[in-house]
Amino acid sequence: VVKRDVTRVITPGTLTDESLLTEEQVNHLAAVCFHSDTEASIAWAELSTGSLHIAILPISSLADELARVNPSELLYAETATGDTPDRIKALSNSLGCPTAPRPQYNFRHAEAIETIKRQYQVQTLEGFGLAPDNPALAPAAAIIHYLLETQRSESGRLSHLQPPRLFERKNHLVIDQTSLRSLEVEQTLRTGQTEGSLLSTLQNCVTAMGKRMLRHWLCYPLCEQAPIEQRQRVVEALVSDSRFLEQLRESLDNVHDVPRIIARLSVGRATPRDLVGLGRSAQAIREIEDLLADRPTVSDYHARAKDLLEVLTTLAEKINAACVETPPAHMREGGLIKDGYDAQLDEYRVLQRDSHAWLAQYQASLLEAHDIPNLKVGYNKVFGYYIELTAVNRDKAPDSWTRKQTLKNAERFITPELKEFEGKVLSADSHAISREQHLFETLCSRAAKQITQLQNFADLVAELDCLGCFAQQAIKHRFIKPTITQDPVLIVRAGRHPVLDQLLGDQFVPNDNDLGLTNLASNYKIDSESSPPALATLGLITGPNMAGKSTYIRQTALIALLAHTGSFVPAEHATVGIADRIFTRIGASDELHTGQSTFMVEMTETANICHHATPKSIVILDEIGRGTSTLDGLSLAWAIAEHIAQTKSRCLFATHYHELTTLADQYDNVTNLNVTVREWQDQIVFLHRIAPGSTNRSYGIHVAKIAGLPKSVLERANILLSQLAVSHEGPAALPTP
Amino acid sequence: VVKRDVTRVITPGTLTDESLLTEEQVNHLAAVCFHSDTEASIAWAELSTGSLHIAILPISSLADELARVNPSELLYAETATGDTPDRIKALSNSLGCPTAPRPQYNFRHAEAIETIKRQYQVQTLEGFGLAPDNPALAPAAAIIHYLLETQRSESGRLSHLQPPRLFERKNHLVIDQTSLRSLEVEQTLRTGQTEGSLLSTLQNCVTAMGKRMLRHWLCYPLCEQAPIEQRQRVVEALVSDSRFLEQLRESLDNVHDVPRIIARLSVGRATPRDLVGLGRSAQAIREIEDLLADRPTVSDYHARAKDLLEVLTTLAEKINAACVETPPAHMREGGLIKDGYDAQLDEYRVLQRDSHAWLAQYQASLLEAHDIPNLKVGYNKVFGYYIELTAVNRDKAPDSWTRKQTLKNAERFITPELKEFEGKVLSADSHAISREQHLFETLCSRAAKQITQLQNFADLVAELDCLGCFAQQAIKHRFIKPTITQDPVLIVRAGRHPVLDQLLGDQFVPNDNDLGLTNLASNYKIDSESSPPALATLGLITGPNMAGKSTYIRQTALIALLAHTGSFVPAEHATVGIADRIFTRIGASDELHTGQSTFMVEMTETANICHHATPKSIVILDEIGRGTSTLDGLSLAWAIAEHIAQTKSRCLFATHYHELTTLADQYDNVTNLNVTVREWQDQIVFLHRIAPGSTNRSYGIHVAKIAGLPKSVLERANILLSQLAVSHEGPAALPTP
Repeated sequence: VVKRDVTRVITPGTLTDESLLTEEQVNHLAAVCFHSDTEASIAWAELSTGSLHIAILPISSLADELARVNPSELLYAETATGDTPDRIKALSNSLGCPTAPRPQYNFRHAEAIETIKRQYQVQTLEGFGLAPDNPALAPAAAIIHYLLETQRSESGRLSHLQPPRLFERKNHLVIDQTSLRSLEVEQTLRTGQTEGSLLSTLQNCVTAMGKRMLRHWLCYPLCEQAPIEQRQRVVEALVSDSRFLEQLRESLDNVHDVPRIIARLSVGRATPRDLVGLGRSAQAIREIEDLLADRPTVSDYHARAKDLLEVLTTLAEKINAACVETPPAHMREGGLIKDGYDAQLDEYRVLQRDSHAWLAQYQASLLEAHDIPNLKVGYNKVFGYYIELTAVNRDKAPDSWTRKQTLKNAERFITPELKEFEGKVLSADSHAISREQHLFETLCSRAAKQITQLQNFADLVAELDCLGCFAQQAIKHRFIKPTITQDPVLIVRAGRHPVLDQLLGDQFVPNDNDLGLTNLASNYKIDSESSPPALATLGLITGPNMAGKSTYIRQTALIALLAHTGSFVPAEHATVGIADRIFTRIGASDELHTGQSTFMVEMTETANICHHATPKSIVILDEIGRGTSTLDGLSLAWAIAEHIAQTKSRCLFATHYHELTTLADQYDNVTNLNVTVREWQDQIVFLHRIAPGSTNRSYGIHVAKIAGLPKSVLERANILLSQLAVSHEGPAALPTP
Repeated sequence: VVKRDVTRVITPGTLTDESLLTEEQVNHLAAVCFHSDTEASIAWAELSTGSLHIAILPISSLADELARVNPSELLYAETATGDTPDRIKALSNSLGCPTAPRPQYNFRHAEAIETIKRQYQVQTLEGFGLAPDNPALAPAAAIIHYLLETQRSESGRLSHLQPPRLFERKNHLVIDQTSLRSLEVEQTLRTGQTEGSLLSTLQNCVTAMGKRMLRHWLCYPLCEQAPIEQRQRVVEALVSDSRFLEQLRESLDNVHDVPRIIARLSVGRATPRDLVGLGRSAQAIREIEDLLADRPTVSDYHARAKDLLEVLTTLAEKINAACVETPPAHMREGGLIKDGYDAQLDEYRVLQRDSHAWLAQYQASLLEAHDIPNLKVGYNKVFGYYIELTAVNRDKAPDSWTRKQTLKNAERFITPELKEFEGKVLSADSHAISREQHLFETLCSRAAKQITQLQNFADLVAELDCLGCFAQQAIKHRFIKPTITQDPVLIVRAGRHPVLDQLLGDQFVPNDNDLGLTNLASNYKIDSESSPPALATLGLITGPNMAGKSTYIRQTALIALLAHTGSFVPAEHATVGIADRIFTRIGASDELHTGQSTFMVEMTETANICHHATPKSIVILDEIGRGTSTLDGLSLAWAIAEHIAQTKSRCLFATHYHELTTLADQYDNVTNLNVTVREWQDQIVFLHRIAPGSTNRSYGIHVAKIAGLPKSVLERANILLSQLAVSHEGPAALPTP
């Protein structure tokens, strides 16, 4: 019998049950440990798939990285007073997740090493590529402690938990919490729902692990050219061969949620359906391997598939040989194992089904052997099975029969064979069930031995699924392959917002981007006829409200982000230089309830950008300086724009301060853009098209007119506007950098 | 038996069940009818209390008035095409309520008059104070049609529905939808919940109808001095005599939700508990009348109570004489009527309880009369009751007995008395129940005859409850009686925000107001020593973020609003001139999802203010012009400020445009205010205190510094700030008004 825990503590971070977790949902348990005023380490695990990651971070990046992890529960070392430390409270607030204090000693380094060695039964951690002084071992150990305590698993001691993998920030494009939110990668800003987000718009994976991987790919874009191009090549191959794409997705569709099945296997909570699903999934390897064969672009994936082929096929055969195709939901009443698989089980089942036939046969054999008239074999609830002789024949019973009951007209006997039969029949049911459970357990253990291969298989499937999803999107929504380059440029022709484009269809107006240093321009001819684009690193966008500035700057950031995931992008042409970070400072913030004023939030986010933007960064700024007085705000916006211009990050800066457009005269790498508006018979029509050049009109008074402000007020405002100007006193000298 | 409808159509606007409606909740069904491009009429009813109001409105005020009504369902005349007219869609959107098309003829004027005459069984509507050509009779009739159709009530034909009362806008302070929302009168802006609103903060009524009336008083403040002062006098009397207040509230506490009980009475859905509750409520009139006696300030209320005294006391006695104190939830099994109230019911009950005793007694009487040995009276399921004689005695039976059954050893008979007894006993149960139901119905009909008096009683109780609530608040939270005047002034000393003050307690910083025309100043000395306040109609408030500008302007509007309800206000002194409207244009709007840009919303709201503000209005403006470019926004804010200054409305105008402070030089009635800030050791401390004079600092760069912007950027911003200025070219001539 599979041992089941009598008690299991369920906490937000340790959910594994399918009923409580959708297949797309990633449920992270995280732990944090502060090492100094500047450094912290974190670990995060997904119990339902067994992944465990660790990272060492500057404290300034802690909230951002935890936001990407998006934990459901955060563990921290309890304090002597029992109070929650302020920085834990702040994290909990910004992440919106509960926290749990854990004993200090769970986080102690020396003990952490022992905990991890014990968990993985190793003598040294170097095999995992981890130095013994890695500070992030402490939160990892805290997580292991917590899982052992809450899961109380005797079997396997969380055997599916993978060794801690060090997360290297430098391998990924950095996207901070604010940008993830304002770009609506995982959820929309207004409603906080998945629907309408980038993820849900692109989501097209056929497997559960693919769906989870897609989220990961979008939140952790790559930042090296080679791996991005490697993904692109596969997507391209799939796009160009739609039969291949279709077949691949069909094959992948047979793969169940393998990581979650092995997680349940390893804690002894797998169901018969899990086992059968695992068999069916493992079987899919043959078709996948076959599909990938002889295609140079996917040779890496083919090699990985080939490595797994034998082990998984064997496992699949084992499971398929043993199990029926439509297994029961649980083992309580058996029904999983096929007839003919196990002789002992077959016998129990024969006993269950064929007791009548056996008795008839036994009676016939007795009659034949003893020739006693009216001999009968019968059954009664109190006395069980018996051989009955009529009273006149009672003395004809052989000595080997044992007298059991004497009636008026009959005598009843029992024989050893009958006794054994009785025992067998009466317990056949429970025996059959426990035999099935034993066989089930054996198969589970057999499968559990292949945990590593199964995890590799799941990773392979997830990756192929995401690439297939990218290809599917590219075909369906006319995405093209962006050219990836080391030059910090961002050149897009007819780019579209990936979410709004699908929502609005033909109504959406595509737009171009030409960001980068001027001296790079000649490298990036769009096509043979046209002249190379004129580049600038900073595009200042002016223009009226409602004209599509916000959409344009968001779409630019999203195209850059998608390009870094290896996905194709919604445009007619795109050349994207590798970025180190994408920063955004967009729109009204949600943080009003935390007591900070909008302006404080705006400045905090902008300060973060000023400090961390580099020539490789992509920066999106919307209406900086709006929350304070005219000249304060203008000065700040001005100084910030100059700072970014000097940093030479690729930046789009949407602003109401038309005064900033003079920056283009001072800086070579600053250009003015505006949203085109057609004035027609006293109406204004927003064309949603971004064009070079500055605008000197914001149509504010025009909007006021449409809104119905009295004529006298409008006339006065126009007079005032014609008289007002922002003047500089003294030279607008550039500060020394 | 009370007749119950087999079917009743439940719609959002016709809920009356207690389980679906909290006692505070007002559930309005409204109907709208357009008469021309400029005029419309509306009617709204509360089925659960029977109120029905009508109003004729300019179309421009339709949305605002319907927002105050806050209907759960809006009826309109269906169109020939079956499409919902655009203006109905717009109303439905802005109100967030469903609409229902109704047949055109329900809205036809001639038929409307007939419908209303039939409903109220009158020959003319003049008795209701309604001219027969009142266009609002159409929507009222549409509502009556709808109620008759959905309620399908046979008994009483909605007898509790009151005749339509004409709502006169001129009797009430106008507060538009935007202002109701941004002042958070009924619900908070951010969460849309009741908690944290003005209503929930003040809510302290002890009766359900008081709670609903308080909502009404806050949404419909008065705008005439006499009725306001009338309410104030009662509040004052209650404040000064806390024993009186306490006793009054205790007496009111005995009054159940009378309007809803009579509503259920009239549609035949009253429960026994409703009836007993009604009795208990009616009984309270005696104590209330007694409490109000001999107090000149409440003599009006006393007169109203005295008028009701006899009728209600009689009704209460009737009900109390008949009903037990803890009635059952329904009449299905009886248990409402007291023993001893009704002879017939008592008999049924005696039969139920005492059949054994009766039988024993009957047997004894038979034995005595006939002297037959072994005579027995018995019962069997098949044959019912019988008199049994042993076989030997069978011939001793008198002729009057009827033979019923012959047994081996006995003969059984029946007598007319026994037959009657049998009938009585067997049906006693159902008879008792139907008798109780009959009595219940009689009492209900009896109560229903007093519907008018009960409605008057409910109104009286609700008003007294609200006044008690005001008094309670005044005592608990140190509210004072504002002086009401016809002069358009608003003079407050140490005013507090009614909601935040209770939330923050001692931390809240009170502030003053001095709004009004200068020449009025001498009329309003605050106390004998100090000089009269310096007045201006327009206060321009500049100062940094987070310093409390928004709180201050909201609190001013709320104090003015409270003063118009007759409530005391949170201040040390307040003189409030009667206003015709309170306008606000505050904060970020919620309407972003309707596709209008923030700036468009801002301008639309401001246009409304510019068009309708009068010298008697109170206007609150926050950060006008922010949504567009610098100079556009400044010009508009400037022109709008000038317009309001010329209108001479009492206005507070919070702005980031420090340039506007020069207006004070041009207009006598404009004054500058600022939020005081203490700079201390490179820190800034916000004192949340409003002081006269302008400020030339907004601390934007300071906030940016706190937020961590790089030093170089801050230095550059400071240099830029010192060089920048907004200049006027040409004379800033005033426009001809």
